[in-house]
Amino acid sequence: MAAGYANQKEHVTPKITLVGAGPGDPDLISVKGVRALRTADVVIYDALVDDALLAYAPEDAAKVYVGNPSGDENFSQEVVNQLMVDYALNFGHVVRLKGGDLFVFGRGYDELAYAARYAIETAIVPGISSAISVPGLQGIPVTQKGVSDSLWVLTATDATGALSPELTTAARSRATVVILLGFDRLEEIAAVFGREGKLDLPAAVIQNGSMKNERIAVGRVENIVKTAADAGIDSTGPVLLVFGSAVSLGRNFRVSDWAAAGPGVAYHRE
Amino acid sequence: MAAGYANQKEHVTPKITLVGAGPGDPDLISVKGVRALRTADVVIYDALVDDALLAYAPEDAAKVYVGNPSGDENFSQEVVNQLMVDYALNFGHVVRLKGGDLFVFGRGYDELAYAARYAIETAIVPGISSAISVPGLQGIPVTQKGVSDSLWVLTATDATGALSPELTTAARSRATVVILLGFDRLEEIAAVFGREGKLDLPAAVIQNGSMKNERIAVGRVENIVKTAADAGIDSTGPVLLVFGSAVSLGRNFRVSDWAAAGPGVAYHRE
Repeated sequence: MAAGYANQKEHVTPKITLVGAGPGDPDLISVKGVRALRTADVVIYDALVDDALLAYAPEDAAKVYVGNPSGDENFSQEVVNQLMVDYALNFGHVVRLKGGDLFVFGRGYDELAYAARYAIETAIVPGISSAISVPGLQGIPVTQKGVSDSLWVLTATDATGALSPELTTAARSRATVVILLGFDRLEEIAAVFGREGKLDLPAAVIQNGSMKNERIAVGRVENIVKTAADAGIDSTGPVLLVFGSAVSLGRNFRVSDWAAAGPGVAYHRE
Repeated sequence: MAAGYANQKEHVTPKITLVGAGPGDPDLISVKGVRALRTADVVIYDALVDDALLAYAPEDAAKVYVGNPSGDENFSQEVVNQLMVDYALNFGHVVRLKGGDLFVFGRGYDELAYAARYAIETAIVPGISSAISVPGLQGIPVTQKGVSDSLWVLTATDATGALSPELTTAARSRATVVILLGFDRLEEIAAVFGREGKLDLPAAVIQNGSMKNERIAVGRVENIVKTAADAGIDSTGPVLLVFGSAVSLGRNFRVSDWAAAGPGVAYHRE
């Protein structure tokens, strides 16, 4: 904050740029995102953002941490919105640097809409979506001719906190199903696929995708809960679930290994 | 090719890096993608890639154009695969720079699998997916609490060239439906949504998303074919279709304008 106040100007042109930081690896930010950071008066960032990205911003730019977007009571979306607007009005160019996806369960729209109420100019710099890139980095193509013709991205729960009714439709489909924010409900989700007769459908759980502390568990619907537990996956950091035949194309899925060792083989990547 | 031969080395370490170039705007490539290009001995690129990106590669690196990935008979996937491997074996580090998505109807997996047959080391640098970022740049959040709980990404046709049977399921769902490679079948696709009673569902057609020559048409299922035609959208370059309530949140959708002017109003962006 001290740096921010030192940087306060007499006349400012408020502007808010939403920048997607990508799935975790700081080098997956876009060139355009780096350019926005270089002209920032203030950077507002959350728990999913790598500190290395803050170094792109000017030294005297305020760097404001707003916690874990999906959990921290101290930084509700309303607080973040208001901070963003206040900083823009007082200091000029605010870069709202967001880990994960801007628009896939990312609240980017809420932030744009809030800025619009104050008639503050906004710009959008999209990021690399974890829903596609995190499986991709494991060699899992979310679509592949003859294997999966489509990609369906969901969360585990609907607005009421109940298991999303769309999961059943997704489990029936031939889509690659990617579920964000769903690790805590993995057992129930696997049960949905099981009820649709898909116990042998390949499945993967990836924690901290693209980061140094990435962990991956690959198995099938019938053993994915145990496989994830054996791989030491927990709910720290982002965890992504992938269900679909395309998982079998990934480099951690070996049908022969799996058949020889029996279900429950955990694949653990350094 | 001349530059390539001049650059040929006695001993090379073959390597292939798949780099996603993003939806079109050359500044949407990642920092990691730029770094890969800087160490390229050869860049193999397609029609969707902006020439500005080639400038990141060393001057004496061979730059090899392989046409339109979804159409050009002269550059079938088999030809591209073989070129990629031949260049890697003879020159060292090949960067396969791909416009659009690596793994969403992008053939990235085919290229990795082909390289694996020759035991060539591969690396993956994901790009920004057009399926999420192109709507996002128009202020259309592909998911939004209370509006759309999920995102379904499809192509128009299945492996046989017939209209994808999954489109009907998608039209019934509450997902935001993004269709790539489907502009030629727009009328049939709109009819699928119409048969599911969704004539008033907001819809958008975006050509050359994120590029200077971007064109956008926003309307509803019942008028989207005419709206796209009125906006001058054709099948040159990538065209993406979006169906879902979330389209109404975008900055080109104005319910009041639409209601006042009647259906068929084309929104045309410079």
